[in-house]
Amino acid sequence: MRYPFLKLEETVTKNNIRKMACKARDLNLEFRPHFKTHQSGKIGEWFRDVGVNAITVSSLSMAEYFASQGWLDITVAFPVSILDLRRIDKLTSQIDLHILVNDLEAVEFFNNNLTNNLSTYIEIDPNYGRSGIPFSNLEMIEVLVKEIDSSKTLNLTGFYAHAGHSYKCKGINEIKELSKPLIDQFSMIKAKYGTKLCWGDTPSCSVLNQFGDVDQISPGNFVFYDWMQVLIGSCTPNDIALKMNCSVVSKYQERQEILIHGGAVHFSKEFILNDDNSRNYGQVINSDESSDWSNYLKSVSQEHGIISCSPSFFNKLNIGDVVEVYPIHSCLTANLMQGYSTTKGEFIKHFTSGTPYNA
Amino acid sequence: MRYPFLKLEETVTKNNIRKMACKARDLNLEFRPHFKTHQSGKIGEWFRDVGVNAITVSSLSMAEYFASQGWLDITVAFPVSILDLRRIDKLTSQIDLHILVNDLEAVEFFNNNLTNNLSTYIEIDPNYGRSGIPFSNLEMIEVLVKEIDSSKTLNLTGFYAHAGHSYKCKGINEIKELSKPLIDQFSMIKAKYGTKLCWGDTPSCSVLNQFGDVDQISPGNFVFYDWMQVLIGSCTPNDIALKMNCSVVSKYQERQEILIHGGAVHFSKEFILNDDNSRNYGQVINSDESSDWSNYLKSVSQEHGIISCSPSFFNKLNIGDVVEVYPIHSCLTANLMQGYSTTKGEFIKHFTSGTPYNA
Repeated sequence: MRYPFLKLEETVTKNNIRKMACKARDLNLEFRPHFKTHQSGKIGEWFRDVGVNAITVSSLSMAEYFASQGWLDITVAFPVSILDLRRIDKLTSQIDLHILVNDLEAVEFFNNNLTNNLSTYIEIDPNYGRSGIPFSNLEMIEVLVKEIDSSKTLNLTGFYAHAGHSYKCKGINEIKELSKPLIDQFSMIKAKYGTKLCWGDTPSCSVLNQFGDVDQISPGNFVFYDWMQVLIGSCTPNDIALKMNCSVVSKYQERQEILIHGGAVHFSKEFILNDDNSRNYGQVINSDESSDWSNYLKSVSQEHGIISCSPSFFNKLNIGDVVEVYPIHSCLTANLMQGYSTTKGEFIKHFTSGTPYNA
Repeated sequence: MRYPFLKLEETVTKNNIRKMACKARDLNLEFRPHFKTHQSGKIGEWFRDVGVNAITVSSLSMAEYFASQGWLDITVAFPVSILDLRRIDKLTSQIDLHILVNDLEAVEFFNNNLTNNLSTYIEIDPNYGRSGIPFSNLEMIEVLVKEIDSSKTLNLTGFYAHAGHSYKCKGINEIKELSKPLIDQFSMIKAKYGTKLCWGDTPSCSVLNQFGDVDQISPGNFVFYDWMQVLIGSCTPNDIALKMNCSVVSKYQERQEILIHGGAVHFSKEFILNDDNSRNYGQVINSDESSDWSNYLKSVSQEHGIISCSPSFFNKLNIGDVVEVYPIHSCLTANLMQGYSTTKGEFIKHFTSGTPYNA
């Protein structure tokens, strides 16, 4: 076995998938999961097994990859680039493609240049500040709706919103307090235009049981979860499906720290802040004490990871041992590792965003 | 052309290589460049063209990759893991392999279990706090030297030190003030044991003209440099050989921000802090005003990048334009992008650390 490797707990993953699929069914919501987290054709099949046939991805390259894996109904949840005109026309001749727009100029361009019809969502920014037309800009929303309504090629399917600021929440109550008013405001758009509403972030989809007038949910991270989601309140540690397996290379007695092979090219440089403002780049699992979260990755360079240890954890480990570490952000860790090692010893290679598809 | 892509300036890269090779030759230092930054067989050839035949890498997998590319003299600049015994024995039967140790237990293990002879460097920690035996722990250094001297299989080739804290310097003077006393202290080890000394970080190798009793230098990042190195004082913007090319997807007038396709899976989540403590995930190039550094990537999510713009930069850009962005940390960006697009339109695919080699 070569270290580090990213262990995938198949049972945990399938439970996460089943739970979210059941929730959507119970609440009468269309389940259009985001595949950007796992990026894998094989794991996609596990979604098919619970009845999923429409998905969400984060780039056109990823849409092309999943189209090649037999997915025929895909939303690209990223405002479409006018430079991708030809690729879009090609893909719409093969599958039901849905794109996001948030810009009049782009809408006019596609209106004038597309060959095939294209299902379109207007992206709404629910006060997150990344992409989309702000909730409050009713005038601009109206302009876009009219432009799409009068288009020969673009069809208005609905509105899409991603409340990424839910990642700053701590605990279930904060997620609810943030999300409920946003969903209420989003629902007002439906009252006006009557089209579909799609809502996406993992924290709200994990925690809420009411989604106003939302029709579709498209969470992604929930498939694996990660340590950040535990701290946000979306899940428990037992719901995390990915564990980086790293070899213990050296022990530094004087600073009670351990060197593992596992760095920024494996975990990514995503961190969360501990209570004392130190950084945590990965949460180390103490296999003997399931409630001990005192050991963590305090720093990563390209291949080095340094674990800050409690005395008892430091003392029990030997060089050549293997420690398991929960990623802080599973989307980025999974992307870097290019695939998963299952508990059955299989390697599941996935699409990787860094490479141009088919490059 | 598909965006984003990572443009490699071949001329700049070759200049960086030539400059460092000449400096080493002039100072009578063995040049053993670190290949962890570019990870590319093809770029490795450009080093061969200036007479390099011995290299440094950051993992055994990377050593195996470069051995397959015809490199016959490789240092793995990472404390060796006892779990890699068989791979090491295999590789030493093919090439001149050098490994790092900083732990008595590991030395004893290899001493007892290796089949082939193995060239060994003791890693010294020059007060950086990552790996190695601290300078000050003369007793432990002596123990390791004796253990290796009495070994049937391990041969003591020298001492290796990486002063990674030079990355916290701002300006040439700070680099000099930090590095000189460290190199003096490192040189004292040579006075005592008489073996080779290898020294590595890009800031000191770029800036210093005296290296005490050091015999080898093994910088890596200098091959491309990056925006962090500009701020440290190692280079000028014109020395940076990598530019991420990203499409302008949307413009947000009210916040003077631009959405590009280019996020954490392209740039990494490495950032530097601006003077006002805001984060900079990528330095945007203003092609019209070469001294304008006011536009930068203020946030990245998986595929989204948000550029904070000056009014004039915001106004001149249109959707469908392409902006060029200097990476903050080229090692991590290069690793994520899995290869380089040259100005001649070629794609140079490289080894990528996330995957087990040959997986």
